[in-house]
Amino acid sequence: MTNAQVTLVQLDNYGPWTVTPAPRREADLQTLQSRLYADLSQFLGTRDGYAFFTRFDNMIAVTNGIDRADHRRLQESLRNRYPVTVSLGIGTGANPTDALVDATAHLQAAGSAQDAERREVLAGDPISPDDRDDDDVRIAHFDVNDATGKYTDELDAFSTFVRIEQGYAALMRTLHDEHDGLAFFVGGDNVIALVPDLDRDTYVDVIERVRAEADMSLKVGVGAGRTATDAGMAAKHALEVCREEGTTVEGA
Amino acid sequence: MTNAQVTLVQLDNYGPWTVTPAPRREADLQTLQSRLYADLSQFLGTRDGYAFFTRFDNMIAVTNGIDRADHRRLQESLRNRYPVTVSLGIGTGANPTDALVDATAHLQAAGSAQDAERREVLAGDPISPDDRDDDDVRIAHFDVNDATGKYTDELDAFSTFVRIEQGYAALMRTLHDEHDGLAFFVGGDNVIALVPDLDRDTYVDVIERVRAEADMSLKVGVGAGRTATDAGMAAKHALEVCREEGTTVEGA
Amino acid sequence: MTNAQVTLVQLDNYGPWTVTPAPRREADLQTLQSRLYADLSQFLGTRDGYAFFTRFDNMIAVTNGIDRADHRRLQESLRNRYPVTVSLGIGTGANPTDALVDATAHLQAAGSAQDAERREVLAGDPISPDDRDDDDVRIAHFDVNDATGKYTDELDAFSTFVRIEQGYAALMRTLHDEHDGLAFFVGGDNVIALVPDLDRDTYVDVIERVRAEADMSLKVGVGAGRTATDAGMAAKHALEVCREEGTTVEGA
Amino acid sequence: MTNAQVTLVQLDNYGPWTVTPAPRREADLQTLQSRLYADLSQFLGTRDGYAFFTRFDNMIAVTNGIDRADHRRLQESLRNRYPVTVSLGIGTGANPTDALVDATAHLQAAGSAQDAERREVLAGDPISPDDRDDDDVRIAHFDVNDATGKYTDELDAFSTFVRIEQGYAALMRTLHDEHDGLAFFVGGDNVIALVPDLDRDTYVDVIERVRAEADMSLKVGVGAGRTATDAGMAAKHALEVCREEGTTVEGA
Ligand SMILES: Nc1nc2c(ncn2[C@@H]2O[C@H](COP(=O)(O)OP(=O)(O)OP(=O)(O)O)[C@@H](O)[C@H]2O)c(=O)[nH]1
Ligand SMILES: Nc1nc2c(ncn2[C@@H]2O[C@H](COP(=O)(O)OP(=O)(O)OP(=O)(O)O)[C@@H](O)[C@H]2O)c(=O)[nH]1
Ligand SMILES: Nc1nc2c(ncn2[C@@H]2O[C@H](COP(=O)(O)OP(=O)(O)OP(=O)(O)O)[C@@H](O)[C@H]2O)c(=O)[nH]1
Ligand SMILES: Nc1nc2c(ncn2[C@@H]2O[C@H](COP(=O)(O)OP(=O)(O)OP(=O)(O)O)[C@@H](O)[C@H]2O)c(=O)[nH]1
Ligand SMILES: [Ca+2]
Ligand SMILES: [Ca+2]
Ligand SMILES: [Ca+2]
Ligand SMILES: [Ca+2]
Repeated sequence: MTNAQVTLVQLDNYGPWTVTPAPRREADLQTLQSRLYADLSQFLGTRDGYAFFTRFDNMIAVTNGIDRADHRRLQESLRNRYPVTVSLGIGTGANPTDALVDATAHLQAAGSAQDAERREVLAGDPISPDDRDDDDVRIAHFDVNDATGKYTDELDAFSTFVRIEQGYAALMRTLHDEHDGLAFFVGGDNVIALVPDLDRDTYVDVIERVRAEADMSLKVGVGAGRTATDAGMAAKHALEVCREEGTTVEGA
Repeated sequence: MTNAQVTLVQLDNYGPWTVTPAPRREADLQTLQSRLYADLSQFLGTRDGYAFFTRFDNMIAVTNGIDRADHRRLQESLRNRYPVTVSLGIGTGANPTDALVDATAHLQAAGSAQDAERREVLAGDPISPDDRDDDDVRIAHFDVNDATGKYTDELDAFSTFVRIEQGYAALMRTLHDEHDGLAFFVGGDNVIALVPDLDRDTYVDVIERVRAEADMSLKVGVGAGRTATDAGMAAKHALEVCREEGTTVEGA
Repeated sequence: MTNAQVTLVQLDNYGPWTVTPAPRREADLQTLQSRLYADLSQFLGTRDGYAFFTRFDNMIAVTNGIDRADHRRLQESLRNRYPVTVSLGIGTGANPTDALVDATAHLQAAGSAQDAERREVLAGDPISPDDRDDDDVRIAHFDVNDATGKYTDELDAFSTFVRIEQGYAALMRTLHDEHDGLAFFVGGDNVIALVPDLDRDTYVDVIERVRAEADMSLKVGVGAGRTATDAGMAAKHALEVCREEGTTVEGA
Repeated sequence: MTNAQVTLVQLDNYGPWTVTPAPRREADLQTLQSRLYADLSQFLGTRDGYAFFTRFDNMIAVTNGIDRADHRRLQESLRNRYPVTVSLGIGTGANPTDALVDATAHLQAAGSAQDAERREVLAGDPISPDDRDDDDVRIAHFDVNDATGKYTDELDAFSTFVRIEQGYAALMRTLHDEHDGLAFFVGGDNVIALVPDLDRDTYVDVIERVRAEADMSLKVGVGAGRTATDAGMAAKHALEVCREEGTTVEGA
């Protein structure tokens, strides 16, 4: 059993803010969102967590090893520097999907994402230090084979993007619906997934499925660790082995 | 005929950099990518352009009114502050898709995205000031009806995300394959598309298609202007009319 | 006669904000201030202006060529992304000191820096395009000779800092009180001054004065241009000539 | 006895980089420096340290409670995102001045700040957890009385700046030369000093000295704690007491 700790980061009442008193310029919103996400990624990432941008108004992070005091400090740091605030729901569970269901439930119980009164909620409990284990987090790092040669240098930029989005969509659905994993596009042709303990054959099947549905050829490196960084770096090294050996699945 | 000017922003030889001399921490890459995108959005956005994060290693921007000297200054500003450089392809055409095909072709002609020798290319020509018109840019701003009540507050965060991604995928494909438009997810439940001059019925059909394929209910505000900001703000105001009047398409 | 255009950037009612409802963490304030200054420097700098951090709550910029619409856009961009707003006073005059007196007067006339009602003032007028000239801006870039060998590698870090601060203080006072110039520390051992048209002998005297008062040996490159960037780059190249030739004053 | 832990952050070989292959635009350097400092302040500040911008190429931080692994992570995070790297010297001592002398000595022993071979040095040892105490750090937060009414709203912006710089210079010299304290200007009219355990009378004298030398009227709040944040927040609350009670020294 894995033991992922997942944090849902939700901007408070952000939809109304974007149009009050009048619609705000989109470029400013994009700049705001990406700077706030960068600060989140820096904060959590240098504490061995992983933050994914997801929808930008709802971001999902893997936070094993990051306690409530750190979460509070994050809220304060953002409140002191941005015109918006964030609520945080911390969830745990037998697999990544359950952990995120738990994290979401904590925020939903506290009120609507667009309730003007609901601000800076911090709900849910981190895994206690005694219950932490060296393989609590499992990360699968997927990458498209020769995306540069087959897409980027060949198709126009939007067609490449459409192809990669389709591969990502197939992968995300398969992992979520059948394996309780959470997959996130992280740029380029890379997808990083928080996964339960899956065996080699399952990864072979998943990759086959993406080839069938989206005609895209993937490789994957898998790693486990006490934190997202530990697991993620192991996954990256496994992916390099795929590159060197020409293999499709390493680390599982 | 619309007259979009599109710039493809491509990080030079970025894939190899991410794993040299050894794989770099993912959180640092995420922080780097989002900060670089934020700087791009600030630079272009305060010159009335729009930048979309797309794949982060390949970003697409609407740059009507932004000349070659500005593009050069952008390259220099990034080179002076980041460990990576960018190449820029400027494209124009009878519709957004053609413009991006043109922009991409300029970069591909100069070499591969992963050619270590190809650095800081600036290729392609902006629309000359004399040829610019008050409706050169057309923007359609799509938004999910009551995403908060139907998804964010109801489903777990990943299921909401999957739903919105599916709606986005259906929308992006329909606009691209049938109408030569380029649609970009901009966070939350919002998609902004660079479009040709489409009529009201077409938008009704597109929205119907997304409902059929992805069971998601959209509204859209459309605007035209000399620049992305002009068109985009008109689209936002049209979207507010949808909200106030309970209508589905405004501005087209 | 030079024709500098100077903008005073003042955070609105910032003092009270830093302690409301309770004192805010200093590290957050420092992060906020430096990020806001960076955005200002990026915005003005890529439009050929120069922004100096000065006191951080009051920043001074050289803005020749930057019009009222740009100033407005800057205010909006900051308002949309920060928890604080800025007022801007634009000044011109026969010399840099007069220009800044003018810029300051515009803001003071509009109310106190700590008046909760005074927000986002934009006052004063840019130089009209017809009145602009190719040598409107004059920049003198001062640098300590062999700061690394004589201070950084020799003294402890604070003693070095004290020495450089003393040299800077002597330079700033002399330029301001006797020559109507505005000198700003820009990091390291560098001071950049906005100056009127001064001759070579004056620079020799100024440098002699700093040696006498603060026992510090300087060189200076001087440049003129239509914008701060033009003048500043000319000054930097002149400074490189000093380095190569071992001279003390170049460009004046 | 206090037990400050001080880290000297030095950009590696930065001077030559700023002019290679040709002088880089000053605005880009300013943007780079302030963003790098902001990242440093966020990294250390959310770990209860304080970072001061000082000279920007040499920054000084109070890092009690921050270990070598954190320092390494900071170096890696910056290397992965900037075109420059940093060396770090960690120092301790009987008073702040000694601690910084120690920190500086570690870097100087490793090579020159402008030695192209000396990169990413990490030298010196943090205070071991067992030796840490609840009053290891002492912070004095100085503030000018009614700076807004007496200067900002009355004088032109540069004259105000000159006045505040003079007050700061007098304060910094007195604290350093006579009391082994390190004072840093933090913006506005505020100076934060890392100090040994000084009594009330000493603060009265120091403030008197600044009045005599620079004709500036100060108040000060003093605090002690296990970390810079603990001590600094206590100092800020003491300063608020000065404001409420009209007193000059609180907390000492
Ligand atoms: N977020 C993230 N993106 C990466 C990483 N490695 C590569 N990328 C992205 O993937 C893109 C393509 O790079 P590669 O995967 O190296 O190139 P490729 O042509 O597909 O080659 P192979 O994968 O070696 O077959 C890059 O531009 C990056 O955007 C990584 O570790 N993290
Ligand atoms: N980028 C961007 N995102 C927006 C904008 N307006 C809203 N959003 C996003 O959309 C999310 C949902 O907000 P709304 O669309 O106002 O909420 P809703 O519940 O769907 O309500 P209605 O659209 O009014 O039916 C917000 O959290 C934002 O992330 C916008 O102008 N630009
Ligand atoms: N803002 C800014 N700072 C600079 C620039 N050039 C150098 N510096 C700073 O000055 C510091 C010292 O660099 P140098 O002036 O090259 O070194 P030096 O030892 O004094 O050598 P010489 O000036 O050549 O005698 C660097 O660490 C930078 O912080 C510049 O163009 N702009
Ligand atoms: N870094 C920092 N700066 C501050 C803080 N508090 C105030 N400032 C700065 O000080 C400036 C002046 O604010 P105040 O000190 O509140 O104003 P004042 O007019 O001097 O009023 P009194 O100090 O109450 O007499 C502000 O604009 C800020 O730049 C703080 O806690 N930290
Ligand atoms: Ca790949
Ligand atoms: Ca919506
Ligand atoms: Ca020098
Ligand atoms: Ca004050």
